[in-house]
Amino acid sequence: MLAAMTRLVLRLDFDDDARLGPGKIALLEGIAEHGSIAAAGRALGMSYRRAWLLVDSLNQCFREPVVVTQHGGRGGGAAELSAFGRRLIGRYRAMEDAARRAIGEEIAAIENDLRLSPRNRPSE
Amino acid sequence: MLAAMTRLVLRLDFDDDARLGPGKIALLEGIAEHGSIAAAGRALGMSYRRAWLLVDSLNQCFREPVVVTQHGGRGGGAAELSAFGRRLIGRYRAMEDAARRAIGEEIAAIENDLRLSPRNRPSE
Repeated sequence: MLAAMTRLVLRLDFDDDARLGPGKIALLEGIAEHGSIAAAGRALGMSYRRAWLLVDSLNQCFREPVVVTQHGGRGGGAAELSAFGRRLIGRYRAMEDAARRAIGEEIAAIENDLRLSPRNRPSE
Repeated sequence: MLAAMTRLVLRLDFDDDARLGPGKIALLEGIAEHGSIAAAGRALGMSYRRAWLLVDSLNQCFREPVVVTQHGGRGGGAAELSAFGRRLIGRYRAMEDAARRAIGEEIAAIENDLRLSPRNRPSE
């Protein structure tokens, strides 16, 4: 039995404007790691403007702020996740795990039909 | 208890190049409905070129063709799903349903924190 190779990615579409998916979650994890929106965006190959807009949309989306910023100079100052923001990441990752467990067999069935599946290579 | 308003969207990343998500599935459903790649693309606001490339990537991705095309004139001829393609759509939609059931409570918890949640509007 091979280890699963497929990554399951979830996106929640709350409405046409408000979404939560892998890009925003990765940005939040980057802010937790780097302590600034600019640095987190850079690590993801994202402009400061784009990273800032994503953070702003998250902060608008929920009743509590997800990211808390401090005044800074050019390019923005320090930023950190709120307790709510940390909880949001945890929930998202837990949902990924639970969904993965729920549909792991179906994913394996689709993997079996992949042309490039390790299971389908001549060497095996 | 309000009906769930959030849409859960799944994407499977088989590897860096091969993915299956809502856009390709909607295109396949459009081909089943309209009988051509061009018409399915148009219905989704997609250029013929983009629709054709997505179909080609799907056909490359799996051991069996997903979409079968017939010779046609300018803009492409008729197209229909293979039996495998129809099964792929069914599996994807079934995975969405199963994942939704598995993490429905977590989704509801996140909905409770939305600023625009119907549950959080003053009128309720």
